[in-house]
Amino acid sequence: MSITVVGSIAYDTVKTPFGARERMLGGAAVHFALAASFFEEVRVVGPVGEDFGEAELDVMRRRGVDVSDVERVDGGRTFFWRGEYGWDLNSRETLDTQLGVFEGFQPKLSQLSRSSDVLFLANIQPDLQREVRAQLPHARFVALDSMNLWIDTARDSLVSAIADVDCVILNDAELRQLTGRPNLLAAARDVLSWVAPASSPNGAGRGPSVVVAKQGEYGAALITEEGFFALPAYPLETVIDPTGAGDTFAGGLVGYIAAHPREELSDELLRRAMAHATVLASFNVEEFGTERVERLTGAEIVTRIGELRSITQFSGTPVRLRH
Amino acid sequence: MSITVVGSIAYDTVKTPFGARERMLGGAAVHFALAASFFEEVRVVGPVGEDFGEAELDVMRRRGVDVSDVERVDGGRTFFWRGEYGWDLNSRETLDTQLGVFEGFQPKLSQLSRSSDVLFLANIQPDLQREVRAQLPHARFVALDSMNLWIDTARDSLVSAIADVDCVILNDAELRQLTGRPNLLAAARDVLSWVAPASSPNGAGRGPSVVVAKQGEYGAALITEEGFFALPAYPLETVIDPTGAGDTFAGGLVGYIAAHPREELSDELLRRAMAHATVLASFNVEEFGTERVERLTGAEIVTRIGELRSITQFSGTPVRLRH
Repeated sequence: MSITVVGSIAYDTVKTPFGARERMLGGAAVHFALAASFFEEVRVVGPVGEDFGEAELDVMRRRGVDVSDVERVDGGRTFFWRGEYGWDLNSRETLDTQLGVFEGFQPKLSQLSRSSDVLFLANIQPDLQREVRAQLPHARFVALDSMNLWIDTARDSLVSAIADVDCVILNDAELRQLTGRPNLLAAARDVLSWVAPASSPNGAGRGPSVVVAKQGEYGAALITEEGFFALPAYPLETVIDPTGAGDTFAGGLVGYIAAHPREELSDELLRRAMAHATVLASFNVEEFGTERVERLTGAEIVTRIGELRSITQFSGTPVRLRH
Repeated sequence: MSITVVGSIAYDTVKTPFGARERMLGGAAVHFALAASFFEEVRVVGPVGEDFGEAELDVMRRRGVDVSDVERVDGGRTFFWRGEYGWDLNSRETLDTQLGVFEGFQPKLSQLSRSSDVLFLANIQPDLQREVRAQLPHARFVALDSMNLWIDTARDSLVSAIADVDCVILNDAELRQLTGRPNLLAAARDVLSWVAPASSPNGAGRGPSVVVAKQGEYGAALITEEGFFALPAYPLETVIDPTGAGDTFAGGLVGYIAAHPREELSDELLRRAMAHATVLASFNVEEFGTERVERLTGAEIVTRIGELRSITQFSGTPVRLRH
């Protein structure tokens, strides 16, 4: 069952302590699509400028991604981001953002993109996320990412957007900011309590049932009504460039769920999806931009899933306690 | 097999967003001893002042802790710390530190304390840690904690102290600062490569074989020559006071290892010890100071170990990958 993603397609100029790249292929929709392409066909919706190359589209095509809804805007420039990471890669500074064709972007979805049963709303203005969501009212599973900018400037719209999806994928700091609750569990329970109003085009009374808190180098946590699950990041001795890790994570998560259309959205399925998300993200950060994921193989993913299991297990040997 | 711990015995005045306490029982050796007391007998070495009450000693005695090496200094004042936590409990400000009897403290270990086969050097000046270490040359397992102050002011002595122990337990930021390596795995491998010099009283060529990185609310990671293991923190909706969490964690870890003297120090044993450390720390933060751990029961620990297992497991169901 195919996946539609709406979000940025970008050129990124990135500097990390380990090197730099000029105008490499990036953007949330691109990182998401490459990761999710290991599980299902992905249809990318988003604008690019006249400067966007066929070679970049071919990167996605080679992974079976449908780019027919990538809209080339005459006379426009592709979204551009320039940033630099600090020595431990946990801090990053945005040095330049040029919206280009994203300014005034109105998502146009083809019949095919509207027929996907899984939808990912990557980090864009929440009004746009809601417009796209409304075009796939019958999607089986809808997930959403966002960022601090929209919590600061468009919180009401973001809350409405969240009430109309099944799964929210945010950094843990963003979850805290969004809810005003410092405790992660309490913040997640807040979000799980939000429901779409009666006026919602997508059905009143629905609301998110899954919250995923991305924790960067520490891993990620999953909170549902049913329970809690957490995974560390896959340990790497060399991390080169974290750009796109969050979107690659989302691509692994949403892709895995899309590939299991007959399974109920249980915690057991979500945990396996979290593991695949974690592994996909770990490959992404090993090289700049999309370089590593472009030549990733299914066999490599399977091997690392096994390793991730082994580094998170402990035996249940009974203990001897004194008192 | 009993455990000796040397470290601070303190009065803490703490304010968190959830309340405050004046001059409550605290200190690294106290938190460690209460946690480790669930596994083995603990002997506490450290000074207190004339102001230190019998009621506070009784808190330890009730958990079977041997306080006969707690040295009461005539005319002295007990170590005092006053601090305040920020809204998300991840930042804390030290408002006052009064060393009191810790100024000029020379650890005096009784024959009994020197006969323990497990030793924990809580966070004190590294020269003092080395003096105590030298008094237990035949200990089977020695672990050490430290802090950024000693990395800044006494790094050489700290490195020597580390080279003479089996296990280093530090915050991940401290590990990075200590080694100058931003990557956690690389930092840990650095520490694992340090060996005691030929002049060491405790045997040349030995060095740490276990590094534990405490990651606060994100959990903890274990790095050995053999492998890597990570556990999230036990999820809590209400965290009241993180003071002493790290020492309680160390008490669970070292206590568990002490209680299994016939088991080789394998990763499998260390993983179980990490789980018990995680669970002990989770109880500690549920109330102020030692309040929760004072009335903790073995049954509660066992229950939470089971819960911790269940929130970290995912199934190995084979995946269907497209490419």
